[in-house]
Amino acid sequence: MSDPLRLGIAGLGTVGVGVVKIVQRQAHLLSARTGCTISISAVSARTRDKDRGVVLTDYAWEDDPVALATRDDVDIFVELMGGDDGPAKHATEAALRAGKDVVTANKAMLAHHGQALAELAEAKGVALRYEAAVAGGIPVIKALLEGLAANRISRVMGVMNGTCNYILTRMDAAGLTYQEAFDEADGLGYVEADPTLDVGGIDAGHKLAILAAIAFGTRVAFGSMRLEGIGKVSIDDIRRADDLGYKIKLLGVARMTGRGLEQRMTPCLVPATSPLGQLVGGTNMVVIEGDAVEQIVLRGPGAGEGPTASAVMGDVCDIARGLRLPVFGQPATSLVAATPANAESPACFYLRLELVDKPGALAKVATALGENGISIDRMRQYDHPGTSAPVLIITHKCARPDLDAALAALPATGVVAADPVALRIEEV
Amino acid sequence: MSDPLRLGIAGLGTVGVGVVKIVQRQAHLLSARTGCTISISAVSARTRDKDRGVVLTDYAWEDDPVALATRDDVDIFVELMGGDDGPAKHATEAALRAGKDVVTANKAMLAHHGQALAELAEAKGVALRYEAAVAGGIPVIKALLEGLAANRISRVMGVMNGTCNYILTRMDAAGLTYQEAFDEADGLGYVEADPTLDVGGIDAGHKLAILAAIAFGTRVAFGSMRLEGIGKVSIDDIRRADDLGYKIKLLGVARMTGRGLEQRMTPCLVPATSPLGQLVGGTNMVVIEGDAVEQIVLRGPGAGEGPTASAVMGDVCDIARGLRLPVFGQPATSLVAATPANAESPACFYLRLELVDKPGALAKVATALGENGISIDRMRQYDHPGTSAPVLIITHKCARPDLDAALAALPATGVVAADPVALRIEEV
Repeated sequence: MSDPLRLGIAGLGTVGVGVVKIVQRQAHLLSARTGCTISISAVSARTRDKDRGVVLTDYAWEDDPVALATRDDVDIFVELMGGDDGPAKHATEAALRAGKDVVTANKAMLAHHGQALAELAEAKGVALRYEAAVAGGIPVIKALLEGLAANRISRVMGVMNGTCNYILTRMDAAGLTYQEAFDEADGLGYVEADPTLDVGGIDAGHKLAILAAIAFGTRVAFGSMRLEGIGKVSIDDIRRADDLGYKIKLLGVARMTGRGLEQRMTPCLVPATSPLGQLVGGTNMVVIEGDAVEQIVLRGPGAGEGPTASAVMGDVCDIARGLRLPVFGQPATSLVAATPANAESPACFYLRLELVDKPGALAKVATALGENGISIDRMRQYDHPGTSAPVLIITHKCARPDLDAALAALPATGVVAADPVALRIEEV
Repeated sequence: MSDPLRLGIAGLGTVGVGVVKIVQRQAHLLSARTGCTISISAVSARTRDKDRGVVLTDYAWEDDPVALATRDDVDIFVELMGGDDGPAKHATEAALRAGKDVVTANKAMLAHHGQALAELAEAKGVALRYEAAVAGGIPVIKALLEGLAANRISRVMGVMNGTCNYILTRMDAAGLTYQEAFDEADGLGYVEADPTLDVGGIDAGHKLAILAAIAFGTRVAFGSMRLEGIGKVSIDDIRRADDLGYKIKLLGVARMTGRGLEQRMTPCLVPATSPLGQLVGGTNMVVIEGDAVEQIVLRGPGAGEGPTASAVMGDVCDIARGLRLPVFGQPATSLVAATPANAESPACFYLRLELVDKPGALAKVATALGENGISIDRMRQYDHPGTSAPVLIITHKCARPDLDAALAALPATGVVAADPVALRIEEV
């Protein structure tokens, strides 16, 4: 009564091992819930001789993931190698061409080649699923693609890189510098081999680009995203933001606006009492806003063996149960190439200025801001041991180009002692 | 290229009108995402002549929901009448028997008749979907049934009645008594015609029973749930809990334990800094814990026209896209009748006692507790203007039967001036 469904798993790192464990341990549960006997036919990884803590001797071994992807005894190709190009992409393409369903956790591949892969999968009539590519164990792709399918989505945002949130949380809670917190995260194994993927916002940007495509029916457009990592966030700004009732987060925001598609992955201030503001440590959070549903918040582990394997196997279960959807929710050939927004939507901004200790300094700054259309909502001047004084300004809502013009006009006032810091305050 | 899919909607209250609005306004979006032209053939409600703010003249009218459910031009019967029995159930059964897919928001009907309806739907090979029945706009059924299908679920819990959470939040934030907060909620239209459905925990209990069935592969067992409403929660307890770093919530918890299925919907203390503790107002939250995914938290509006209609139409989209699953995730005939747990799992408890102002009173209480195996973790005595003094105790983890025995032994000490309050502290 139970149909067989055979997996070929390429990539036996943390996630791959987690998937093997679920298949081995939950055979009865998976069969009860899907009506299929889910098994593993073959596996592939860079190194064969390595103790991974799971028994792999029952499975055929392939050195070449393309060979694995096209085996006759593989129904679903599970791609867990990573990398936007190279073996992962070649093997995924080979699997799709051979008419295999594919499940992947590879955000980089989808952010760069999602459109072509989706068109290929749909032309072949097979599934390409990727729940694990975004926010680890949180079923956010399913929520957006299926659960909220009747909504016109207005905004998707989230904290989707646990490493960055861990670093920012440690700076906040323990008063560490960025470098100290980074080193701590690195020592715990939280940082990717190429750290810019994490702290540069690239990894989280890949995830946001995928969510935006689903949300707005547009082609994945990672290239037009504004990316800014957390490397310049200082402990000073974290403390000042705290004083004002805000937390600094590496926040991804995607919106469809009258000016086009806005995609940003940048450090932002959010109210300390909001769900995003309260998110500490390596946990992820995604916020989805739609015209009918208002606002949904999803929170959970963004990485790790179990959570990511849970997402991969959730996709496998969907395929086993016969679910077949267009990859991004509507046929790939109908996805439009969105015009990137020429400017981000207006917001209030946090400004930190270092003013020389001279009478009239503040008036000169206020004038320069005002002449560029920037008005001040709140201002706070701090005690200062040296010859310059830190001044914090929260602006009224303003356009980013006006703010940039105002900031460019500051040096000419002769009262600004250091480069100003400007951070967006996202309304959440 | 777009297949027609025709709805028959029974019930034109808030949610029904919300569904009509989505179908009317989002025709293009729904068609792009599902490949179907979704339309409404006929509607039904108790009163025909009533301005509902939407144009219904294009749809056939049926006075009898059973007649609506079985119309030839209805593909999906959308049941939004409510009520565990009577017309909603009759019409749902008629639709299923006629081979129609059914989407419902009716938690009471599923909590009482879910098993029979699921067996009927599965025998007929049609869908019975109910995302809107639990936690409004939050796609929690989808998360549990599909996204987390590869997990052995250990616990599902949540705040699933917005009215109760609103009342508790107002008592906490504004210092209102229970009755004052209840009257305020009632004035805002938040309370059901039969208030015990809300404040007695019945409505939330229906939702929890549905989640438990999916989580544990068991037959819906609303009858064996321990239900306790918020009517006895006092402003004193809310303040004392605050002092100790906790919030009081009407918390539903379902767990599968060695002692059987534990289902509770009772006022509990949760840490003020936890996501559940931070949840204010009418918002809902569901927490799901599984062996692979660890913990997922879902937050969103638990009621209202748009959010609930979003959930209903999400189900319609699933059906339009061809998704067909067993109603509770595995075939209804395979769901087991769970043995109800004979006692809830051990926990720490909050106790509030009123002790007469006599030397040795506290020692007598501590002895009575200790003799019944209850040890004290923290204790706090408050200033007292009268002849008795409030004493707060947080116990170490203990078994509920032991606690009950200890509480039963207190009157004999002769130092307890009022009935003690005992509230469970749920680890979250």
